[in-house]
Amino acid sequence: MSSNDPHASSGRSQELLYDPNLPTPSHAERARTLAASINTATLASVAVEPAGYPYGSFVTFGLVGGDPVFLISELAEHTKNLRGDARASLLIAEEGEPGGDPLARGRVTLLGRCQPSTDESVKAAFLAAHPNAAYYAGFGDFHFWRLQVESLRYIGGYGRMSWVTSSDWSAARPDPLAPVAAEIIRHMNDDHAAALIAYCHAFSRATDATSATMTAVDRYGFEMSAITAAGPRPIRVAFPRALATTEEVRAEMVALVKRARAHLGR
Amino acid sequence: MSSNDPHASSGRSQELLYDPNLPTPSHAERARTLAASINTATLASVAVEPAGYPYGSFVTFGLVGGDPVFLISELAEHTKNLRGDARASLLIAEEGEPGGDPLARGRVTLLGRCQPSTDESVKAAFLAAHPNAAYYAGFGDFHFWRLQVESLRYIGGYGRMSWVTSSDWSAARPDPLAPVAAEIIRHMNDDHAAALIAYCHAFSRATDATSATMTAVDRYGFEMSAITAAGPRPIRVAFPRALATTEEVRAEMVALVKRARAHLGR
Repeated sequence: MSSNDPHASSGRSQELLYDPNLPTPSHAERARTLAASINTATLASVAVEPAGYPYGSFVTFGLVGGDPVFLISELAEHTKNLRGDARASLLIAEEGEPGGDPLARGRVTLLGRCQPSTDESVKAAFLAAHPNAAYYAGFGDFHFWRLQVESLRYIGGYGRMSWVTSSDWSAARPDPLAPVAAEIIRHMNDDHAAALIAYCHAFSRATDATSATMTAVDRYGFEMSAITAAGPRPIRVAFPRALATTEEVRAEMVALVKRARAHLGR
Repeated sequence: MSSNDPHASSGRSQELLYDPNLPTPSHAERARTLAASINTATLASVAVEPAGYPYGSFVTFGLVGGDPVFLISELAEHTKNLRGDARASLLIAEEGEPGGDPLARGRVTLLGRCQPSTDESVKAAFLAAHPNAAYYAGFGDFHFWRLQVESLRYIGGYGRMSWVTSSDWSAARPDPLAPVAAEIIRHMNDDHAAALIAYCHAFSRATDATSATMTAVDRYGFEMSAITAAGPRPIRVAFPRALATTEEVRAEMVALVKRARAHLGR
């Protein structure tokens, strides 16, 4: 793991109020989750003209396992480029909040060779991601292509970045809670403010927290911003096992409240 | 001009209800307008490792004339790549509406060589686009870079695409109305429905239009979607000269209504 952020370490010099060894998603898992949530990206290919220049183009994509797949025209520049040199990468970037810090957004660059494919699984994966493309999938100059990932670079924001191997990438699964995370967060913040404070008091060193806001949830746990006497501080709480559904999260949140109240003697 | 859209021509076989030779923004102008409206993009560089692969990375940028400028760390992958090979491109893509057709979005690939620059104009342009970057601009491992545009590929959506020369790019100016276009369109649609119908009746062959919605405005004119007996049809009306401000557009819209009503004898 390396960093190109000059202040990554300064942000971490503040003592954490929770165990930093709690399970968290790996970079491979974070990158897979990001890629699964987005269906447009930038393809980089080696240009035929001007020869040898790296050429970025906007593409729509689907995923077969961890490999991006495309439906592209022989007439397009990137297709001509790939016919000349199969080496390519795909930059998948999180869309930002207006006014937010763009460099805090997650992104991943998948590198590998991109070649035509007639596999039914490739076609099915692309059309699942882009159903409206079905009407031109049969045009003679359009073909399906697959980028076989050889390595990738993940950047989750400031100070969270690394190269990931293709084996780690292939083994990783997108977070099953990603599609429902926003709804879980909204629900907990709207309706369970007291539970969030109890979690902070019982499961972290933010024992003076006066309020807490859930900021993230993933299969391995959830994160809050706790308001303490020293200001807002991040808190992470782990689930006892990886969870996959809203129902499992709901049950675990209830169990955690009971544990927290027992621990606190309330 | 070429096309990688198999159905671009079919959409054009329907008879236009306005003069197709009305002045419209050139592709260079459309691309400059797009680039001026966005400040994040994908940089493509030639990777040091894996050697020779085209490497896409997320970047923030500013513009000096038509050249993109960056503030990047020596520790970042793309910087190492550019130190090894200055050839690069920048893909700037319009953000989409949720649910819209992603391939209808505008995008431009600027190709050229990217090199460090100590020009004050480069620094000023980057910091104008990213004021919050000032706090790390002085860090030792961060430097300003400039991509000198040699050629570019513009894709405005289906059937609107071409290569643009660096001289056309340098000469083009972003549309001065772009920052206020949304507000002009909203105002015309909310408050001047009768004027829009009058424009269609007087200045196009949509003489049976029963309603019209403004869809775009640029320095050279504006566009509407007119509801005719044959369904919705695009209409363009030209301004008599290039306009630059909301006030000039307002005055011209009033003058056009007078001309339209005189023409229609109302």
